[in-house]
Amino acid sequence: MADIRHNVVIKATPEKIYEAVTTQEGLEAWWCKQTTAKPEPGFVNIFIFGQYYNEMKVTDLIPNKRTAWECINSIEEWIGTSISFDLEEKNGKTLLRFTHGNWKAATDTFAACNYDWALFLKSLKSYCETGTGQPA
Amino acid sequence: MADIRHNVVIKATPEKIYEAVTTQEGLEAWWCKQTTAKPEPGFVNIFIFGQYYNEMKVTDLIPNKRTAWECINSIEEWIGTSISFDLEEKNGKTLLRFTHGNWKAATDTFAACNYDWALFLKSLKSYCETGTGQPA
Repeated sequence: MADIRHNVVIKATPEKIYEAVTTQEGLEAWWCKQTTAKPEPGFVNIFIFGQYYNEMKVTDLIPNKRTAWECINSIEEWIGTSISFDLEEKNGKTLLRFTHGNWKAATDTFAACNYDWALFLKSLKSYCETGTGQPA
Repeated sequence: MADIRHNVVIKATPEKIYEAVTTQEGLEAWWCKQTTAKPEPGFVNIFIFGQYYNEMKVTDLIPNKRTAWECINSIEEWIGTSISFDLEEKNGKTLLRFTHGNWKAATDTFAACNYDWALFLKSLKSYCETGTGQPA
C-alpha cells in the first residue's frame, strides 16, 4: 500500500477551506471545472477531466475539520483509494493535511498524481487566499 | 520507511535536465540560490536555505540518465535519506522520476516536504523549458 500526503499552510480560515473542498462551487474553483458535488454523507460527487470520469462517494463530513471521499469509479488504480482533507487552525492560518491513500503500489501513475495533486493544492491555496484558483 | 516520488514530464532534452540537477549553475537556477556543487562522485554538495544547512554527497552520476545524493547533514529527519533524479527520453520530451527516499516515517515534515518538492520540480521544469526557475 502507498499513500500520497501533502501538508499545506493556507492563510485562510478552516471555514473557507472546508467550503472549498466540500461544495460544488468551491471544488469547481480550484480542482475540476466539471464538478457535481454536494456536502451530504453518501452523495456521489462526480469530477470530469476530459476523458477521465471520477466518482467519489462522500464518507466523512465534520464541519470545518475534515471531509473524505471513497473513489468508486475512475482509472483502475484510483478505484478503492480514499481522499481526505483534514484542517487544523494554527496561529491565524490553517494547516491542511491532504491524503490520497490506499494505493496498491507506488507506481509511475502514483508519482505523476503526487506531483499533480501538489499543483492542485497550490490552486486550492490560491483560491482560498486570493479568490482565484487554477482548476482543470 | 517512506518515499517521496514525483514524475514530471519536461519538454527539454535529458542533457539539459542532467545539467540542471548536477551543476552548481543549474541547481542555483531552480532549487537553492546558495549552492556549492560539483558533478563529481563523492563530492559533498552544500545547499543553504536561510537557517537550513544541507550536505548531500554525490553517490551516482550517469551522464544524461541519473544522479543521486545521500543526505549526510541536514534536519534530523533528512539525514540518511537519499535523493535521486532519473531521466528517460520519451517522444521528444523527458520523463523525470524524482525520489526522496528512505524516510523513517511519513510524518508532517515528510508531507510538507512532499508538497515543497513538487513546487521546486515545477521550478526545475520551468528552468529547463524557459530558462527561468524560482529557486529559494
